[in-house]
Amino acid sequence: MRLHEPFIRWTGALLLLCPYIGAFQYPSKLDVSGSLVVEQLLKLATFSDVPNPAVTRIVFTPNDMKARAYVKDLMQLAGLTLREDAVGNIFGLLAGDGSAEGLVQTGSHTDAIPLAGAYDGTLGVIGGIAALRALSAAGFRPRRGIEVIMFTSEEPTRFSLSCLGSRAMAGVLSAETLARRLDENGTDFLTAATAAGYGRGSTQAMLDAARVKPGSVSSFVELHIEQGPELEANGTSLGIVTAIAAPAALRVRFSGDGGHAGAQLMPRRNDAGLAAAELALAVEAAALGTGAPDTVATAGRVDLAPNTVNSVPREAAVEIDLRDVDESRRDAVLAQILAAAEEIAARRRVRLQTEVANRDAPATCAAEVVAAATAAAEQLGASHARLVSRAYHDALFMAQIAPTGMIFIPCRGGWSHRPDEFASPAHVELGVKALALTLARLAGAAGNPGKAEL
Amino acid sequence: MRLHEPFIRWTGALLLLCPYIGAFQYPSKLDVSGSLVVEQLLKLATFSDVPNPAVTRIVFTPNDMKARAYVKDLMQLAGLTLREDAVGNIFGLLAGDGSAEGLVQTGSHTDAIPLAGAYDGTLGVIGGIAALRALSAAGFRPRRGIEVIMFTSEEPTRFSLSCLGSRAMAGVLSAETLARRLDENGTDFLTAATAAGYGRGSTQAMLDAARVKPGSVSSFVELHIEQGPELEANGTSLGIVTAIAAPAALRVRFSGDGGHAGAQLMPRRNDAGLAAAELALAVEAAALGTGAPDTVATAGRVDLAPNTVNSVPREAAVEIDLRDVDESRRDAVLAQILAAAEEIAARRRVRLQTEVANRDAPATCAAEVVAAATAAAEQLGASHARLVSRAYHDALFMAQIAPTGMIFIPCRGGWSHRPDEFASPAHVELGVKALALTLARLAGAAGNPGKAEL
Repeated sequence: MRLHEPFIRWTGALLLLCPYIGAFQYPSKLDVSGSLVVEQLLKLATFSDVPNPAVTRIVFTPNDMKARAYVKDLMQLAGLTLREDAVGNIFGLLAGDGSAEGLVQTGSHTDAIPLAGAYDGTLGVIGGIAALRALSAAGFRPRRGIEVIMFTSEEPTRFSLSCLGSRAMAGVLSAETLARRLDENGTDFLTAATAAGYGRGSTQAMLDAARVKPGSVSSFVELHIEQGPELEANGTSLGIVTAIAAPAALRVRFSGDGGHAGAQLMPRRNDAGLAAAELALAVEAAALGTGAPDTVATAGRVDLAPNTVNSVPREAAVEIDLRDVDESRRDAVLAQILAAAEEIAARRRVRLQTEVANRDAPATCAAEVVAAATAAAEQLGASHARLVSRAYHDALFMAQIAPTGMIFIPCRGGWSHRPDEFASPAHVELGVKALALTLARLAGAAGNPGKAEL
Repeated sequence: MRLHEPFIRWTGALLLLCPYIGAFQYPSKLDVSGSLVVEQLLKLATFSDVPNPAVTRIVFTPNDMKARAYVKDLMQLAGLTLREDAVGNIFGLLAGDGSAEGLVQTGSHTDAIPLAGAYDGTLGVIGGIAALRALSAAGFRPRRGIEVIMFTSEEPTRFSLSCLGSRAMAGVLSAETLARRLDENGTDFLTAATAAGYGRGSTQAMLDAARVKPGSVSSFVELHIEQGPELEANGTSLGIVTAIAAPAALRVRFSGDGGHAGAQLMPRRNDAGLAAAELALAVEAAALGTGAPDTVATAGRVDLAPNTVNSVPREAAVEIDLRDVDESRRDAVLAQILAAAEEIAARRRVRLQTEVANRDAPATCAAEVVAAATAAAEQLGASHARLVSRAYHDALFMAQIAPTGMIFIPCRGGWSHRPDEFASPAHVELGVKALALTLARLAGAAGNPGKAEL
């Protein structure tokens, strides 16, 4: 056990006097500037395939590579020790003193769906780096190492698979599944990762290399914008997440015979696009039909072929996302949508293919992480509330590795996945400070092997 | 007047004996091989952005340029005199003896919508060249020059405007309209045409140069597959077109607020994709609602944004094609669809933009062309029937320049705009022969300035 002597001497008296030392010591010492973090988020936003404020950044494209370089620069400027794994997850470590087992990890993603904004995911990466930098600058030395992660491809845009990096770390992604998910050009993930300087000899070897060793992570906490309206509506500054809703994704393909839009008379048609239209409306009806506000279902992606004004659609591929905090209710909605697809296909004489692309279990946040985040919020004197995360996060899969939690800050209008996504610099600053204090509590302060730490 | 002396000497006796010389002379002399024409069509099909049998060939792309080079090669091999105009229409001339005014023109297009087949349009170009070659090889010398045309961009795929080349020739395309129709990359037609070696200093100059001089064309006839089921169903070999249905195109854009598919609860949504789904179904209902088999309406193109599984669609652009042989009934359906779009937008709280992209008048085929084609069919001993063309053709705009008609051959299942589009070599051969004899009648035989010619 290596203790940092001047620090211990400096804080010795306080440690003796105060069972909850961080409560008055750290907020004043944590050097976090919300406006600087926002500046970095907006800098990151410039690495985009479309003009800002919209952001499009797809895994392993040139703009994603620029974002990665920028994240690594920030990690190095913060004095963190860099490493990258086989699927392209990037890690920045604030070393611990080795007196306790396992790393405390935080992080999120920097990829962005088409026409998204500057805050989703990026806050947890840029803010995570800022949190570690602030802890380090405050002279805090953790017992456990604290690591900030930029996860690869949380968004499903390119390979139709969300949370790719964290699924790989958790070992819940099979080589067969991953190899089958090709991008629009028919490229598989291994090929794209290899071109980006990651990868291994095979998809299996890459996944084996990325998988986290059991026991090597002691806890995980992710900072994120809420992506929902509750915090803002209630004037609450911080959300402590207690559970992450259970997402499922369904792909449906209708195939008809197409034909010329002028010459193919109406009774002879089996228009795949109209089958897709009916299905999209059935998805909405199924979600509304539960009567529960927590049920959401979306036909977010529809691709027609040939998709030209003068041709009857021959193919229609629909991708459907559905979520609920109640897994059995979600699965009932899924079954209802599948039944609707069958009924529509039969009635419209189109062929039908369906695939449940994923049906993940919900995650319950760990009591110890919820407690640490709650204590951090109280230490900061910030209003806070317990929330369910309806959005999908890398935390969902990190929960399969280690006790996990999330911290939310309000975002304007609850908007996300939009160019006008926005969180105030004050909330950003509060979120980063709460993250830093939560991480410090989970990692433990060197020289204070005892209880609640800091 | 220059007469071809040996030809006149050779046929002199027959001309005296027979008032209807072509009836026994030309069919035996017309050297047309249906299988050779099909071979050329399948060769042309190889210039495709997708693997055959599907064909995708978009104006001024590398494959379109290869198709143009191939068409020019075939024209030259057929002994035709080549020229190209400012919008990229390609012309191959079999010279006349100058004893009658105006050119007789034929032709069609070689561009192909995504995932189309090998016969739509291409037959009228490759078959037109074969017809002129056969007339020339038979020693036929026309009074009027006969010209085969490959029209630029009959399909609306790239610039959202069908029959671009023939509209330009007819002078019914304004520079303002054309300049506003950008492709997916924001490129305008002039820029694309210039890069392909066509174009002029401005869109207006280009259109002025492409416009046909009044009186310079005496008639136009287009050979095409039927793109409908009637000929095949009735066992008829040739269709003589009497009218071309009146097409209209409507563009509708719904804009909502989007949001995250997990976090945006159902009551807060204004999903543009669901508005598009309802509109597509309203388009179908409006077409069926007339009770007339000739009314067709299609939501052939739907583009969502951001079009990703985990985002509520924020934008939905729908392109609608509607046609009818009865212009007022078609316009009533158009009004009904526009009203549905307004009702849907109001109810779903999405913003609405609509644009009637085109609303063309139907064309009536000229009695003299119908008569010539009918005589040609009878001369060939082929079964024939009068038909309405429900599909859109360059002939629709050529009808504004000169007396116009069309000849159809059967296609399998009435299918078109599909990879399995097919016409038999026997029908191809018959169609090309009928076209040749029709053109010969319309052009007149040198040395026979009198009546029905050949």
